[in-house]
Parts: sequence; structure tokens; C-alpha cells
Amino acid sequence: MHILVTNDDGVTAPGLLALVKEMRRIGTVSVLAPDRNWSASGHVKTMDRPLRVREVRLADDTPALASDGAPSDCVALAMLGLLPEKVDMVVSGINPSPNLGHDVTYSGTVTAAMEAVIWSVPGVAVSLDTPENPLDGLDYGAAARIAYRIISKLLEIGMPKDTLLNVNVPYLPDDQIKGIRITRQGLRVYRDMLVSREDPRGRPYYWIGGEAPTGVVERGTDFGALAEGYISVTPLKLDLTAYQTLDQMASIDWDARP
Amino acid sequence: MHILVTNDDGVTAPGLLALVKEMRRIGTVSVLAPDRNWSASGHVKTMDRPLRVREVRLADDTPALASDGAPSDCVALAMLGLLPEKVDMVVSGINPSPNLGHDVTYSGTVTAAMEAVIWSVPGVAVSLDTPENPLDGLDYGAAARIAYRIISKLLEIGMPKDTLLNVNVPYLPDDQIKGIRITRQGLRVYRDMLVSREDPRGRPYYWIGGEAPTGVVERGTDFGALAEGYISVTPLKLDLTAYQTLDQMASIDWDARP
Repeated sequence: MHILVTNDDGVTAPGLLALVKEMRRIGTVSVLAPDRNWSASGHVKTMDRPLRVREVRLADDTPALASDGAPSDCVALAMLGLLPEKVDMVVSGINPSPNLGHDVTYSGTVTAAMEAVIWSVPGVAVSLDTPENPLDGLDYGAAARIAYRIISKLLEIGMPKDTLLNVNVPYLPDDQIKGIRITRQGLRVYRDMLVSREDPRGRPYYWIGGEAPTGVVERGTDFGALAEGYISVTPLKLDLTAYQTLDQMASIDWDARP
Repeated sequence: MHILVTNDDGVTAPGLLALVKEMRRIGTVSVLAPDRNWSASGHVKTMDRPLRVREVRLADDTPALASDGAPSDCVALAMLGLLPEKVDMVVSGINPSPNLGHDVTYSGTVTAAMEAVIWSVPGVAVSLDTPENPLDGLDYGAAARIAYRIISKLLEIGMPKDTLLNVNVPYLPDDQIKGIRITRQGLRVYRDMLVSREDPRGRPYYWIGGEAPTGVVERGTDFGALAEGYISVTPLKLDLTAYQTLDQMASIDWDARP
């Protein structure tokens, strides 16, 4: 079993190291991760510039590879043969903040797992549901151990085909985590605000600012599970077709020749 | 009716201008688009750097805004109030190559329309199904007129809620375009290859190269419709939950406390 571990926070992030340590209990681990933070960078395939890859060491001296590409580029590079040994699974994280609801298409952590599925390999994204302003020195131990257990179980039963798993772990003491809920993607509520400033030369620039997003706490969803102290595991697929509208839309007389 | 037109090829791309001209028949048009190409850049929310916006002119002297953010950033900036007038619809394109199958989460054209839906505004992505190596001087006329017809019809009947439309138009003479098919997302077949090179200092770098992707031509899908000479209209949603696996996964004994 050869597991690629990546993330969107950069190869030196402590959440990645915690995950690497637990994944070693399952198989051989390779690390190929971005050399900088790519949060909210989306599902990227870098084709307009070449990518660099350099050898680095994690904090515990583990050899790793760092690329100047996005998380999904790292997965593609590995699959394209940059790693000599075939990759059997991609695990991405541990992200220091949750990836819930509509976060999934923005999230570098989740889109790395999407890229794995595009290469017909199971992908698992792991994130920690920290408070709004996470402290330094987060404890990734529980989330890493939970990732180990979930992935071990998946290997036993077989990963659902063409599906990635989006795992979010409550940031609670071990004995307060109640177990797992299989959930659907909930509804994010973004609270972005435009922050307009002027540079020292009097020219405007804009930040996408505002408060951290919230979400709709509803039973059966990722938000609902976390609010009750459960780990949320959401199976995601890459077919975004709005099937429930197909029949209605097909019944319309479009009259749409050019 | 206030329509925001954006794209992922950059504000000066001819496909954008063709779309702007047709959208003016429907309402007031504003243009806020990237100042460079963002193809395959994914669903981005730029939060680690500020964004610049400058006034530019399209080839026909139409005033427009260009941002150094991604297509989805352009939509977010407009929604956050950079455009003084409320935006009622976002139309993105016309992309000079098709966005089909798994392209949708990578595509800047499609993720701009996704961002519109996140802001509760209808989003339509328009792409042209050109041959593998599109010629310069593509004719966007038919695709633009088709976008006009589709959007006019949608305004008449009401856009499906929380849904974006991914429109792909065959690159054929007008009289060979057979009409519209409402389709599901098909299967992309990527043919990426790793291209390793050495820089003038002998250090390696890597291109994600290979041939253009193909797709599985199957009736009912985007690929199937285009192969038969039809316009493909795929309604997409942002809920990626793999509903068909929920029950099976919920029946597993995960035993996954930390």
C-alpha cells in the first residue's frame, strides 16, 4: 500500500506531519505537497508554466517533496510518474480549519482528493473543525488517529467507486468525540465583505474580507454532525449534474438554433 | 436586468466581447474579468493577497474592469459591491475550448458561474467545442446568439434554483447545429503526460503535458450531444454528495473514536 500525503497549507504544516505518522501504520508513505499555502485555491491543473519540485525534510527529518504547484498539481505530478512507485491512495490534510458545505470546490485539501479520484485512486480529505480563530499549536493527534481508523476500515470494505471522502473532525477532547456520522454536504453561509484600501501611492486595492463563514446546522449534514460532537464523513462525487432538473429542462421548447 | 459578463481567458479575449454584445439585447451589461488567462485555475477565493481592479476598454471601446484575481474572484468582487448596481445574472465565456465532463471543477469559465450560484444569482458558462487545435480568429457569433436565446428563455421560465448551466456549443456552421440537448455531465478522458526538462543551470522542471483530453461519447451526456451536432446544456449543482452511497456507508461499523 503506497499512500501519497499532501495538503494545501504547505509541506511544513504540522497537520501534514501528524497525518504522515498515522498513515505509516497502513503502508509506505510519500509526501509531495505545495511549498506554500494554497488555501481556497480550487481545483487547479497548472499548464501555463512548468512546475518545480525540490527535496525537503519534515520536522521529524522525514524526506519529502515540495512543489510550487497547487495541491491538485502535486497529486497529478505523483500520478504522472514523478513518484516511481504507483500510488494507491491519496490522503490530504490535516487542514487546520473545517471544509464544509460549499467549501469543497474551493478547498485545496478537498480538491487534492478530487484529483485522486480523477486518476481512479481513492482520495480522502481530512480537516479539523477548530474554533473561529484557531490557536497556534493545534493538536492534530485525534484527527490523525481517526483518519487512520477510517482509512483502515475503507481498505477492509473497499472504497466506494469514483468517490472521495471529506472528513471533518470536531476539535474536542478525545472522550467528547461521539463517533462518526455519514453526512451530506450542508449549506455554508459566507460572510465576506469588501475591504477597500489605498496603497502608499493613493491607488485603490481590495481585500475579500469579512468574518469567518458560518453554516446551517441541520441534522444529516456535515454541520449538523459536528455541532453534535460527531466526526462528519461526507462521500463526494465529481458528477455535478443537477439530475432533479433534467426532466423539467428537457421539456422546455428552447428554440435555440443560432 | 443587470448582467455581469466575465471569463477565464482575460478581459481582452474576443469570446467575451461577442458575449457582451448579445447580452446587451437582454439588459445592462457590466464586464469584470481577469487581466490574464486563468484556464484550469479552479474555484478560487483569493484571501492571502489584495486584488487590484483597473478600468480598461474592450476592442469596440466598451468600458470594462480588469482584475488580477481569478474568474470567481471577479464575480465575488462584483457581488461584494465593487459594482454599484446589483447583479442579477452572471454569464461567463465564451471559452474557446469546451468544458465537458470532469473539466467543470477545474474550469475558470464554469467556476465563475459556480460563484454566482453561491451568491444566489443565476450563472451560465458558455464554451465552444472547437477542434483540438483551435484556429486563430474563431467565430463566436453562433455561440453568442445561442447564449442569448438560452438566457432569454431562462428569464421567461425562471432559472432552476441553486443551479448553474454549463453550455457547450458545437463549432459548426449555423445550419448544421441541430438544436439543444439537456445533458448530464459525461466522462472526460485525460491524456496528460509528464514532460521533464532541465533549465540552463541543469536543474529539472516539469510540465504537465500530453495530448488534449478526449471523452466518452455516450447518449445523454455533454459529449454525446456535441458528437451528434447538438448544443449541450448541463444543469450543475454545488451539492457534490454521493447520495447513492450514503446508506451503504452509514451501515458500516466504523469504530472510529480517536
